[in-house]
Amino acid sequence: MSDKIKIGVIGASGYTGSDLVRLAVRHPDIEITALTANSHAGKPMHKVFPHLANLGLPDLVRNQEVDWSTVDAVFCGLPHATSQEVIAALPSHLKIIDMSADFRLRDAGTYKQWYGVERTQHELQKQAVYGLSEHYRKDLATARLVACPGCYPTAVLLLLLPLVRQGLIDASDLIIDAKSGLTGAGRGLKQNTLFAEAGEGMSAYAVANHRHAPEIEQELSLVVGQDIVVNFTPHLVPMSRGEFITAYARLADGVSAADCQQALEAAYADEPFVYMAPDGVIPGTQFVRGSNKVMLGVFEDRVPGRVILMSTLDNLVKGSAGQALQNFNIMFGLQETKGLQQVTLFP
Amino acid sequence: MSDKIKIGVIGASGYTGSDLVRLAVRHPDIEITALTANSHAGKPMHKVFPHLANLGLPDLVRNQEVDWSTVDAVFCGLPHATSQEVIAALPSHLKIIDMSADFRLRDAGTYKQWYGVERTQHELQKQAVYGLSEHYRKDLATARLVACPGCYPTAVLLLLLPLVRQGLIDASDLIIDAKSGLTGAGRGLKQNTLFAEAGEGMSAYAVANHRHAPEIEQELSLVVGQDIVVNFTPHLVPMSRGEFITAYARLADGVSAADCQQALEAAYADEPFVYMAPDGVIPGTQFVRGSNKVMLGVFEDRVPGRVILMSTLDNLVKGSAGQALQNFNIMFGLQETKGLQQVTLFP
Amino acid sequence: MSDKIKIGVIGASGYTGSDLVRLAVRHPDIEITALTANSHAGKPMHKVFPHLANLGLPDLVRNQEVDWSTVDAVFCGLPHATSQEVIAALPSHLKIIDMSADFRLRDAGTYKQWYGVERTQHELQKQAVYGLSEHYRKDLATARLVACPGCYPTAVLLLLLPLVRQGLIDASDLIIDAKSGLTGAGRGLKQNTLFAEAGEGMSAYAVANHRHAPEIEQELSLVVGQDIVVNFTPHLVPMSRGEFITAYARLADGVSAADCQQALEAAYADEPFVYMAPDGVIPGTQFVRGSNKVMLGVFEDRVPGRVILMSTLDNLVKGSAGQALQNFNIMFGLQETKGLQQVTLFP
Amino acid sequence: MSDKIKIGVIGASGYTGSDLVRLAVRHPDIEITALTANSHAGKPMHKVFPHLANLGLPDLVRNQEVDWSTVDAVFCGLPHATSQEVIAALPSHLKIIDMSADFRLRDAGTYKQWYGVERTQHELQKQAVYGLSEHYRKDLATARLVACPGCYPTAVLLLLLPLVRQGLIDASDLIIDAKSGLTGAGRGLKQNTLFAEAGEGMSAYAVANHRHAPEIEQELSLVVGQDIVVNFTPHLVPMSRGEFITAYARLADGVSAADCQQALEAAYADEPFVYMAPDGVIPGTQFVRGSNKVMLGVFEDRVPGRVILMSTLDNLVKGSAGQALQNFNIMFGLQETKGLQQVTLFP
Repeated sequence: MSDKIKIGVIGASGYTGSDLVRLAVRHPDIEITALTANSHAGKPMHKVFPHLANLGLPDLVRNQEVDWSTVDAVFCGLPHATSQEVIAALPSHLKIIDMSADFRLRDAGTYKQWYGVERTQHELQKQAVYGLSEHYRKDLATARLVACPGCYPTAVLLLLLPLVRQGLIDASDLIIDAKSGLTGAGRGLKQNTLFAEAGEGMSAYAVANHRHAPEIEQELSLVVGQDIVVNFTPHLVPMSRGEFITAYARLADGVSAADCQQALEAAYADEPFVYMAPDGVIPGTQFVRGSNKVMLGVFEDRVPGRVILMSTLDNLVKGSAGQALQNFNIMFGLQETKGLQQVTLFP
Repeated sequence: MSDKIKIGVIGASGYTGSDLVRLAVRHPDIEITALTANSHAGKPMHKVFPHLANLGLPDLVRNQEVDWSTVDAVFCGLPHATSQEVIAALPSHLKIIDMSADFRLRDAGTYKQWYGVERTQHELQKQAVYGLSEHYRKDLATARLVACPGCYPTAVLLLLLPLVRQGLIDASDLIIDAKSGLTGAGRGLKQNTLFAEAGEGMSAYAVANHRHAPEIEQELSLVVGQDIVVNFTPHLVPMSRGEFITAYARLADGVSAADCQQALEAAYADEPFVYMAPDGVIPGTQFVRGSNKVMLGVFEDRVPGRVILMSTLDNLVKGSAGQALQNFNIMFGLQETKGLQQVTLFP
Repeated sequence: MSDKIKIGVIGASGYTGSDLVRLAVRHPDIEITALTANSHAGKPMHKVFPHLANLGLPDLVRNQEVDWSTVDAVFCGLPHATSQEVIAALPSHLKIIDMSADFRLRDAGTYKQWYGVERTQHELQKQAVYGLSEHYRKDLATARLVACPGCYPTAVLLLLLPLVRQGLIDASDLIIDAKSGLTGAGRGLKQNTLFAEAGEGMSAYAVANHRHAPEIEQELSLVVGQDIVVNFTPHLVPMSRGEFITAYARLADGVSAADCQQALEAAYADEPFVYMAPDGVIPGTQFVRGSNKVMLGVFEDRVPGRVILMSTLDNLVKGSAGQALQNFNIMFGLQETKGLQQVTLFP
Repeated sequence: MSDKIKIGVIGASGYTGSDLVRLAVRHPDIEITALTANSHAGKPMHKVFPHLANLGLPDLVRNQEVDWSTVDAVFCGLPHATSQEVIAALPSHLKIIDMSADFRLRDAGTYKQWYGVERTQHELQKQAVYGLSEHYRKDLATARLVACPGCYPTAVLLLLLPLVRQGLIDASDLIIDAKSGLTGAGRGLKQNTLFAEAGEGMSAYAVANHRHAPEIEQELSLVVGQDIVVNFTPHLVPMSRGEFITAYARLADGVSAADCQQALEAAYADEPFVYMAPDGVIPGTQFVRGSNKVMLGVFEDRVPGRVILMSTLDNLVKGSAGQALQNFNIMFGLQETKGLQQVTLFP
C-alpha cells in the first residue's frame, strides 16, 4: 500500500490538465488516483492525449464518479466560471489547487465585470490564497484552497512586484506588452487558432480588454496601497508554448536600471525557479520551454529616466501546471522543487 | 525591341534582392537586364533561389561585368556600409533605388555611430531622397537617388508621422515595441536564426540598440522641429515574413483615440497601400503577407490619457522591395500601384 | 459597362473559395459579381477574411439571394457531398467550375463508398469533364461543368500519367507517399489541426483510407486499361500550404530513370505551369508556394530496377483554386496563364 | 565525496551534446565533470546554450585540458570523421559512448565510401558494440566502446528487425520514406536550414544518397544473412525535433498485417521505451517529443500482399542522446530507465 499523496485532476482533457498530469506522473510523492473530463468519461487518457500513453494512468471519468474519500488533493483545470461550483461541492478534507480564474480576484464586482458571471462562493474566495509561489509562500503553507495566478500575471508580477514594492519604478505608468504562444488560447476550437491561420503570422488580441489585467492590477495595488491601472496589451505569436513580457517603466528619481537589476537579483537570489538572464543573454521563451523556470532581464533604455524589463516563462508550466505543483509541494511541506526539475527542452 | 525600362539589381542573392526580382519580373513596364551577386557570379538565378526558376531571368554576374549603358535604373540590395561606394561608382544616367541604410541618415556622425563606418559619399547623401513613398512623394518624383527606409521605420513612421505632425500625441514619450519575422535578419548565417533555434520561441534582440531607432528619430525630429529620442525595442518572432508595431503614446490634452483614428484615416484616405483595420479587425501580419499593404489600428487604452497604436506590413515588400518598386514607379512617372497589386497570401 | 466575364463564387468562406477570390480579383477579364456563404450571409468579406479587405468585393450573401442571370460562370467551393444538389439547381446558361469532389468519380458506387452519400446527379456527372488541365485541355474547352481534381490527384497524376501511358513504370506496383500542409485539412474546426497540436510535429493520417486514392486509381486505370490499385499514404506536415509527393515505382524492363526524366520533360515541354526541377535542385514546396506551378523530379534509386519520383505544388493554387481558374481560362478561350502569373512567395 | 559516476561530454556545443547534458544533469547516478568544445573553450555553458543556465555545469574546456583520470565515462558528440582519432587517444579506463558515425559501420570500405575518410582505428571498431539498446543489450553490458546508431537507423531497425528476423516481410523489397525535423541537420550553418528557408515548406534531401542507408543495410543484412539494399529517402520537415518513418513492405506468403502487429507487440512487450500505437492512434512525432520513446504502428495496405509500417521518435533523444544514456545505464549495470523518464512534451 502506497504512502504517496493521492491526487485527482478535474478537467484533465485541457492543456492545463494534461500538463499537470505530465508533471505529476513523475512526482515521487504523488499517486494519480482520478482523472475527470465529463465529455470524455470512459476513455483511456491516451485517446484524448496520445502522448500520455503507457503511463499507467487511470481512465477518465465524470466528476461525480470519483470516490473523493480516497483522494488527498485536487487540481482543478476547468474553464473559468465553471470552477467555483465544482470546487464548492468537494469534500472538506481535500486540499485544492485551482488553476482557473474563479478565485483569483478578491473583488466580486471585478470578477463579474471581467468574467460575466456572478461569484457564488464568497466564503471560499476569502479562504483562497493567491498562488504566486515566491510571494505568497507563507500563506500557501497552510492554505486549503489555492487560486493559481494566470500565466501572464505570473510573468508580470514576478518581474514587477519587487521593483514596485521598493518604489524603484512608477507603478502608475506601466506599459506591459505581452506575447503568448497558442496554448495560451486553450484547447477550444476557434478558426484563428488553427495552424493554417495562426502560423506564419502574429497579431494583437484582446487589446485593452484582457482578463489578466485586473489580476495584475489587484496585486500591484495591494503592494502600492492605491488603485493601479496598467496598460496590458497581449499578442499571439506562432509558437505553442511560451510567454514573453516586455514592460516599459519610468524609474523613480535617482534610480538606475542597474538598481532594478540588483533589486531583482536580491529578491530571487535563493529561488530555484526565478533567475536573471546571465550577462550577455537576452531572455527568450526558448530558454525556459517545458521547465518551471522564469528568466528575467533588465535593460537600460536610451530614453532617460526609463527602463526596459523582461520576463519569460512557459505558460503551461510556471504559468499554470508547474506553479500549481509548486504550490502543492508547499502545501504538503515537500521540497519545493520536487517533480519540477525538468530541464528546458531546446532546441 | 522593347520600350520597357531596363533595370539592374545589385545584390540579387539576398532576400531583399530576390523579392525585388519576384515583383519586378511581373511589372508590365520593366525588363530585368542585369542581376549581380559577386559571390555567385556565373550561376543561373535558380541555383541561388530555386523558386525563381523558369522566369527567363539573366544569370548572375559580378557588378563590374554589367554594361550599365543598357540599363535605366538600378535597385541596390547590398548590405549596409558596402552600398555607398558601389553606388558612387555607377554612371550618372542611372536612377538608383537603394534598399540599404547607407543614405538614409542625414547626419554623418549618426551614420558612423550606428553603422561603424565613415560616410564617404557626402554629396550623394545630400541628393538622396528618403523613400517613404506616402510622405516624400513630391521629392521622389524628381529624385535620382532614393534611400528606401528600413522596414521598421516604414511601419513606425506611417503610423506616427500624421499624429506627431498634428500634435495629437506627445513625440517625446513614445514607446515602440516591434516584432519581426526572421527574414528581417537577412540571409546571413547565424545560429540564432536557424530553424531549430528560432522556431517555437521568441526573444527580444538589439534592445535599446537597434539601427532603425536613429532613422525613426531623424524623421520624427524633422517634423517636430526638435530632437526626439524614442524607445524602440525589437523582438524576433517565429515567422518568415511580417512586422508588427505596437506603439504606446501619450495623448495631447483633450485628444482622444478617436481623434487619432480620424487623423490617420484622413491622412491615408487616398492611398492605395495604407489603410485602417476595418471595424472589428485587429491588425495581424497575416493580413498583409506578400503584399505591399500596411494595416494600421488605433485602440483606446484603459489608462487615461494614453493610446495604443498598431501598424503591420510585410518587411520584404512594403518594408523593402515593394516600397522600392513603388518609388521606382513615382520616379518614372508610372501609376504608383503598377506591379504591386499582389493580394495578400493567406492562409 | 464592363465587358468582363462575371463570376460568382459559391462557398466563399472556405480556403478554396478565398484563394479563388485572391486570384480572380486580379484577373484582367473577370468581374466578381457574387460571393456566397450561407453561414456568413450579410457580412463583408473582410469580416471572414481580413486579408481580403479593401478589394472592392461584394458582400457575402446566401446562394438563393444571387441573381444568376447577371452571372456568366460559377466557381463552387462547397464541401464534398453538398455540391451536387446546389450545382444541379443552377441555371443552364452558367458555366460551372466545381472544386469539390462530387463530380470527379465516374462510378456512382465508388463515390458512395468513399463519400458516404448517394450520387443524385448522374446526368450531370456524365457531362462533367475532369479538370486536370494539362491532360484534358481539349475536352475542357467545350465543357459546361468541370470537376476539378483533388489536390493530391493533381500532383500525383501530373507526375505519373505520362510515365504510365508510355509504359515506363509498372502501374500495378506504385507506392505514393504524400505530405500535405494544414490548409489541406480545410477550415473546419478539429483539435488536431489547432496550431498547438499540429505545430512542431507530424503524423500520418487516413492511412490506406484517403478519398483521393480512388480518384488517382480511376485516372490511372483509364490510361492503362485495367483496374489499378495504388498505395497512397498521406501525412500532415506543419506548414500551411504545400503538398509533396514521393512516389516509388518499378521501372519496366530496360527503362532507366533518365528515360523517365526525358518522358516528363517532353510531356511538359510547352506547359507554362509544369516543369522539371532544374539540375541540382531537389523539389520543395517552398519553391512553388502561392503560385500555380508544379515542380517534378526524377531520381535514380540505389535499388536496381526502381525509380524515385517527386511532385510538389501549392494545394490551394494548382491543387485547387489556381487550376480552377486555369480551367476557366480554357473554357472561355482565354490565354491559359491569365491571372495566374503569381511568382512563388519565398521565403 | 560523491560516489556518482563521473562523466565527460566531448563536443558539448552541438545539439547532440547539449541534449545529453539536458538528460545527464538530472540522472541520479551521474556527475558531469567535464564538458569540451574546442571552439568555445573557456566559456560557461550558458553562453553557448542559454537554456542550460543555472544548472551548476562546469565551463567548456578544450579536450586536452581534461584530466581524464577523474572521469569514468565519456560521451562523444563530435562530428563524424573526427571522432575516431579523439576516441583512440582516450585513456583505457574510460568507457566510451560515441554518438558519431565513426564506429557504426563494420566494413572499412563502406565507411570510406560514405564518409569520405579512411578508417584509422580498425581494432577499436572491432571492439565497438552497435548501440541499438533493445537488440544488442547483452553485448552492451560488457562493452567498453559503444557506437550509438544514427537517428534514422534507430527508428527503422526497431521497426523492421523483428519482422525481417521472423521472415514476415521481404527484406529485399523495402521502401523507407523518412521525415526529419531540422535538428537532424545539426547546428552547422547552412542557408537551407535557416528559419526563413526551412519554415513553411518541405523538401526531400540526400535522395538515394543518405549515410544512414548503409547502416540500415548492414544490420538488416546481418539478420537475413545476405546483402540487402534498401530504398531510403529522407525529407526535411519544418519542425525542430522528431523523426517519422513510413516503410512499405511486401508480406511473405500467407502473412498478414495483423501478424506483423503481433510480432512487434511480442518483440517489445517488456521494453520500457518501445511500444505500439494504441488502438485508434496513428503515430505522430508529437507523441514522443522530448522523450526516449518510440511509437510503432502497423497498417493494412489496400494493395494486396503489402503492409504499411510506421515508427516515430525524437531524433535527439532515442535517436541520439537518450539512447546513449540508455546504453550507459546498461554498461554500468544501472536500471535502464534511469534518467530517461521524461514524459513527452505536448503540446
